Amino acid sequence: MTARNIARFWEWGRKIICVGRNYADHAKELKNAIPTEPVVFLKPPSAYLREGSPILVPLYSNDLHHEVELGVVIGKGGTAIPQSTAMEHVAGYALCLDMTARDIQEECKSKGLPWTMAKGFNTSCPVSDFIPKERIPDPGNVQLWLKVNGKVRQSGSTSQMIFSVPYLISYISDFISLEEGDLILTGTPKGVSAVQEHDELQAGIQDILTMNFKLVKQKSRI
Amino acid sequence: MTARNIARFWEWGRKIICVGRNYADHAKELKNAIPTEPVVFLKPPSAYLREGSPILVPLYSNDLHHEVELGVVIGKGGTAIPQSTAMEHVAGYALCLDMTARDIQEECKSKGLPWTMAKGFNTSCPVSDFIPKERIPDPGNVQLWLKVNGKVRQSGSTSQMIFSVPYLISYISDFISLEEGDLILTGTPKGVSAVQEHDELQAGIQDILTMNFKLVKQKSRI
Ligand SMILES: [Mg+2]
Ligand SMILES: [Mg+2]
Ligand SMILES: [Mg+2]
Repeated sequence: MTARNIARFWEWGRKIICVGRNYADHAKELKNAIPTEPVVFLKPPSAYLREGSPILVPLYSNDLHHEVELGVVIGKGGTAIPQSTAMEHVAGYALCLDMTARDIQEECKSKGLPWTMAKGFNTSCPVSDFIPKERIPDPGNVQLWLKVNGKVRQSGSTSQMIFSVPYLISYISDFISLEEGDLILTGTPKGVSAVQEHDELQAGIQDILTMNFKLVKQKSRI
Repeated sequence: MTARNIARFWEWGRKIICVGRNYADHAKELKNAIPTEPVVFLKPPSAYLREGSPILVPLYSNDLHHEVELGVVIGKGGTAIPQSTAMEHVAGYALCLDMTARDIQEECKSKGLPWTMAKGFNTSCPVSDFIPKERIPDPGNVQLWLKVNGKVRQSGSTSQMIFSVPYLISYISDFISLEEGDLILTGTPKGVSAVQEHDELQAGIQDILTMNFKLVKQKSRI
């Protein structure tokens, strides 16, 4: 196999590991308890979306929410990675959206069902260009924001995270080995809100980059 | 990139999509309602395990269960695949185990949390050799069994599935696009039970193949 380009991790990376409720103010806005350990769930790589293609509102959801998040791109795999060396496993970052069918997620939560339909549908993981590690010297102190139709909805700093990037890498790799090209979504600050067809999302990370996505309704098969 | 060998799908396939409660008798034994639509969840590809390596009992679980399942290996990707052409997307099959930390799953269900820790840990997806499509003319009529230390625990026919293989392919691909190398786990018949360190699992699919796995306790980091 030819060498894989980490700057295009979404084309070949094999997993997207997401952390929920990692900002206290967001946990509160959804009326969830502040977690004592990370809440971990998965999206499939088929959820990846790049600028230029629209985010689909799933046919089965009437309450699609945006969550802007710092994504951590793994450069070197490992199992049971200590916090002290966790940052050596990071190749870089990406600005990411964790698109969430909140109505379906609430239903799953109340029925004790997995979150896959709420979190794993096609286009549920829009990602920016790859950001080399050097551009973000401290992933625990970076500003993220998201606007819907030009209006700011989310604006926060990763300094508000409950569990740090090294902590998450260590915690996850204790039971799910990390591989080159994996992506970890680190949670969202408060301000999540519903979006619909024709809305325009713009998100940014400090002065590093911005990205734009339009929303369209998923077409039914017939 | 050189051509990928579908007979080694676990080395490069990007997702494992699992269906829960797809046999009425198993749904009943866990006191779950018979589902009216498939219960779908994910394992990461890091969960794959091959014969010769042991299944790990996660440090955090005291109630690890076996679930023997027919796995469907996707040969041709697609989105919103109709049932009528679904079988054209199948390259073959594998005998699979959906190893489940039942205690953690029950906790997740009661707290409305995702199932990832219960279902997605390393070694939670042991798989057999690839079975070419021709060897199983009707995936809706094949016998599966599993023994623990020589004693039969599970024995059932895929004819007892609530949702058929073509139905599942169509249902899943409506919201999660399928790709070459993906694996779909189709659910387990009744008889799931707890296993521990030193137990030996043997599973088989009709007269096609058998596979064996030992259990060891996950080592703590220190
Ligand atoms: Mg899940
Ligand atoms: Mg999120
Ligand atoms: Mg199962």
